[in-house]
Amino acid sequence: MDATLTGYIEKLHRLHFKEMYENDFFLTWEKTDDEIEAVFTVADALRYMRTQNISTKVFESGLGISLFRDNSTRTRFSFASACNLLGLEVQDLDEKKSQIAHGETVRETANMISFMADVIGIRDDMYIGKGNKYMHDVVDAVTEGFRDGVLEQKPTLVNLQCDIDHPTQCMADMLHIIHEFGGVENLKGKKIAMTWAYSPSYGKPLSVPQGVIGLMTRFGMDVVLAHPEGYDVMPEVEEVAKKQAAASSGSFTKTNSMAGAFAGADIVYPKSWAPFAAMEKRTNLYGEGDFEGIDALEKELLKQNAAHKDWCCTEELMKTTKDGKALYLHCLPADINGVSCEDGEVEASVFDRYRVPLYKQASFKPYIIAAMIFLAKEKDPAKTIELLAERAKERHFG
Amino acid sequence: MDATLTGYIEKLHRLHFKEMYENDFFLTWEKTDDEIEAVFTVADALRYMRTQNISTKVFESGLGISLFRDNSTRTRFSFASACNLLGLEVQDLDEKKSQIAHGETVRETANMISFMADVIGIRDDMYIGKGNKYMHDVVDAVTEGFRDGVLEQKPTLVNLQCDIDHPTQCMADMLHIIHEFGGVENLKGKKIAMTWAYSPSYGKPLSVPQGVIGLMTRFGMDVVLAHPEGYDVMPEVEEVAKKQAAASSGSFTKTNSMAGAFAGADIVYPKSWAPFAAMEKRTNLYGEGDFEGIDALEKELLKQNAAHKDWCCTEELMKTTKDGKALYLHCLPADINGVSCEDGEVEASVFDRYRVPLYKQASFKPYIIAAMIFLAKEKDPAKTIELLAERAKERHFG
Amino acid sequence: MDATLTGYIEKLHRLHFKEMYENDFFLTWEKTDDEIEAVFTVADALRYMRTQNISTKVFESGLGISLFRDNSTRTRFSFASACNLLGLEVQDLDEKKSQIAHGETVRETANMISFMADVIGIRDDMYIGKGNKYMHDVVDAVTEGFRDGVLEQKPTLVNLQCDIDHPTQCMADMLHIIHEFGGVENLKGKKIAMTWAYSPSYGKPLSVPQGVIGLMTRFGMDVVLAHPEGYDVMPEVEEVAKKQAAASSGSFTKTNSMAGAFAGADIVYPKSWAPFAAMEKRTNLYGEGDFEGIDALEKELLKQNAAHKDWCCTEELMKTTKDGKALYLHCLPADINGVSCEDGEVEASVFDRYRVPLYKQASFKPYIIAAMIFLAKEKDPAKTIELLAERAKERHFG
Repeated sequence: MDATLTGYIEKLHRLHFKEMYENDFFLTWEKTDDEIEAVFTVADALRYMRTQNISTKVFESGLGISLFRDNSTRTRFSFASACNLLGLEVQDLDEKKSQIAHGETVRETANMISFMADVIGIRDDMYIGKGNKYMHDVVDAVTEGFRDGVLEQKPTLVNLQCDIDHPTQCMADMLHIIHEFGGVENLKGKKIAMTWAYSPSYGKPLSVPQGVIGLMTRFGMDVVLAHPEGYDVMPEVEEVAKKQAAASSGSFTKTNSMAGAFAGADIVYPKSWAPFAAMEKRTNLYGEGDFEGIDALEKELLKQNAAHKDWCCTEELMKTTKDGKALYLHCLPADINGVSCEDGEVEASVFDRYRVPLYKQASFKPYIIAAMIFLAKEKDPAKTIELLAERAKERHFG
Repeated sequence: MDATLTGYIEKLHRLHFKEMYENDFFLTWEKTDDEIEAVFTVADALRYMRTQNISTKVFESGLGISLFRDNSTRTRFSFASACNLLGLEVQDLDEKKSQIAHGETVRETANMISFMADVIGIRDDMYIGKGNKYMHDVVDAVTEGFRDGVLEQKPTLVNLQCDIDHPTQCMADMLHIIHEFGGVENLKGKKIAMTWAYSPSYGKPLSVPQGVIGLMTRFGMDVVLAHPEGYDVMPEVEEVAKKQAAASSGSFTKTNSMAGAFAGADIVYPKSWAPFAAMEKRTNLYGEGDFEGIDALEKELLKQNAAHKDWCCTEELMKTTKDGKALYLHCLPADINGVSCEDGEVEASVFDRYRVPLYKQASFKPYIIAAMIFLAKEKDPAKTIELLAERAKERHFG
Repeated sequence: MDATLTGYIEKLHRLHFKEMYENDFFLTWEKTDDEIEAVFTVADALRYMRTQNISTKVFESGLGISLFRDNSTRTRFSFASACNLLGLEVQDLDEKKSQIAHGETVRETANMISFMADVIGIRDDMYIGKGNKYMHDVVDAVTEGFRDGVLEQKPTLVNLQCDIDHPTQCMADMLHIIHEFGGVENLKGKKIAMTWAYSPSYGKPLSVPQGVIGLMTRFGMDVVLAHPEGYDVMPEVEEVAKKQAAASSGSFTKTNSMAGAFAGADIVYPKSWAPFAAMEKRTNLYGEGDFEGIDALEKELLKQNAAHKDWCCTEELMKTTKDGKALYLHCLPADINGVSCEDGEVEASVFDRYRVPLYKQASFKPYIIAAMIFLAKEKDPAKTIELLAERAKERHFG
């Protein structure tokens, strides 16, 4: 076997992640440091094998169920790519084509679609207090189904974005950072600014900023969360960030100044989101069926947003970062000034300069998802990688 | 090879089912007893191999076309699972995305989608006299296409529910019964009650009750069909049931009393359906484009239904069954009192007590579908199972 | 290896088509004669291997992305079949389910969906000057993405119909002709009539007549383009046709007489299309958002069409063709008199007599698409075919 692959395998041998087997992936902060590192390592190994034309197809048959409660391009394709890479066929659960509206319970549906499912990927980020809970309901249902002999295997859940976290996005972001900085060991003391930015659209999910502070505080970095007054994220996630920062000898601070956050930053992640309190209110209005209230709230929020058009990632601000060359991140698509809107999250020249790294950032997501599945499905992932390398089946024959 | 698999293979050797090869599956009563038993046997064998991690992928490439003219979750996923288990990729024929409306004939479409299709699964249960006929039109078209050298193979048709029968559902139900009762030989003299039940919704297909009496009268059971006056099913299917009951030394009786049907029953299947005569009328109104007439009919039927709210599977009724412990069946989703509706087909406590067996009942459907495909596509199914066991390719590697 | 396959391999050895590797397929006239012949040869070889139950699956994993901006049955299924035959899983980019409307650029989307894509198939034929350009934008984007290390492979583009050409259709048509006439060497001096025909519908794409004259003028045939005055196709494509006809010692002529075109023809292809000038006008109106203008144009065009109901492929006209037995072609679905419309492109008895050859004509499309992919993805296609034959993996096991 070649040295690179041996390196990944040896790294996996040093990590403890046994409990990922037959488990699920909800929130990054529910995982240990070793488990998080195992995901990065397997993602790198799978990508490396693909570049070496080594097939990583571990399933001859099996389904990967996807359930998107919001439109999606990149996450949909990332999930499809990840499943395909491992040999699973994607089957969308399109709730409009299904009979779920006929009064079927989550418990029932979850079992009915899982007879041959090895993975379920869910995106449900629209309502506070709902998405993550729904994922747990699904997992509870299939866990029971497996225990009761209804299912021959328990499909693993991959959280493709919930109201709390967006683990596949943030771990892809992080793996990109690790590659850009030449290893996780180089991140100690680096400053990363997760900042709010203005967007003319309304109600962007909180899961990205929450996911970022919930993950990136684990690596000894100085994590700054910046937003205008009133744009707070979930307090529970801030608590997580604080604790993790302390444990990793990094820091977690908050500010209402974008300039302060950018000053000297090694990494910046300027992105719009909706205030947590407003999202909570919206969820309640929705629960009450008060659509007039929702409309009114939307108008109010757009007006509130408009007061902060100065929160934009400008060339001027970028100059104030470390050597004027901070790594610019975005989960895409971004609201780009003069391109997708008049005023947005970022100036076009900044975005253009970082286009290649931004696309690379996105390119890690399929591998992160595949790694999550792999770690949940393989009893001895290091061994399986070894066996795949020995099997040496070409991904592309000829 | 292990004893279990050898058992299935030996059983297949004792059965005569040659004519299933390159044939189609429309109605269960068009198949011989041996052919029906071959489906059960292959379904069990495929399931067993899957639990033993033996890949049953017999196709390296090939498509399974699905055509659903009604929304569906479980049948859609069952078909997808079955195809995937055998190595076929599902391709939906979504009539909205297609050009069929441009005046294309069934004959033409059937050929155009079948150049690499090994299976076509169709669900078309909405109009009396249409669904089964449509399936025959498709089969006639691809049979000609194959004969004329247009197609390199004749795809096999799997009836995923028509106006007459729902063979994949009823055979899954039956295989569930066989497993619950420890073998088909234990069913002689058992009483099964296929009874109407109240639902607040309108126009549920007749294919389940028809499929049940058309299949379960073959095994020497006492099959009772119960419904309020005016909720008759197709008379032709009742004729089939009568003949089969006689031939199998069982019985087929009808009653307008739910209590009478439940009394002493070993198995109960309470489920709503629409009266055959009304469905026929609806089909004619639809043919005439009389949508006002359809609306009026719907109101009339809902009113008629509402007169029979007492047709509910209650705890009280369940107590009157054999030892108070009849096996409760439903094709799901059920209308559950106080859960999906105020008054429905079944009391919540009954449904809850049978949840695990109900889910198991559903779990047989993918294997029944896979078995139907397998028997149509493999020249010597017993031999292929043997070869698959020898090949011993893992479904899940690692 | 058997003689037939050896024949194909030897033929490939005689052809020069190196530049197809890692390239794309936009327009047939951008390809050399050898490249066109390589597509036909590989298509025949893939089809032959399939009939011999030899798997041609060269990909263990990988996605084939399809993007249809217009409804489609046969092209959709042909693309799906082609991908499946080679081992790629189809993933639809449904623009309604995606976030593209959020202001994402083509460049971004193209990369985001391509991380594991080996092929992208696009159908975009609605607006003059747009479809082909869009395909180039996509290819430029993924070429850059591959160069910049964003993508691990450059997906190959297959033009599934644009505003200019419909290469997969016309090459399938041509391969059908070659088979019907017993070889490309028998086509010299044969007369083919690509003629307009009346249809009650409006705005049928120009890509078929353009594709036909842009391809079929390469084989020494006498190609006649016939249409009523005012139904011209793109002048650039006529130029291509003229040059190619001259180079192949054939001819390219135009006429406003359907009878003239049919007289003595060996092959006839009567089909409706919209005038190029009108389509251009429509594109401009669309660009200006002038929907009233579009409606007015549509009415005007339908009226104009109605003046040419005599442009129909009648039995009478067919009698005037070579021995009264010209090969009748259509890309399907056709507008058939008294079947899909009152007056249309062809009389029912003519269509019926040619039904089998018409279906065969269509049957080549999946193989043409597969051949285009194969030639773009295999470094040494002849060698790969040899290796596949040696590997001798069964497509259908058992």
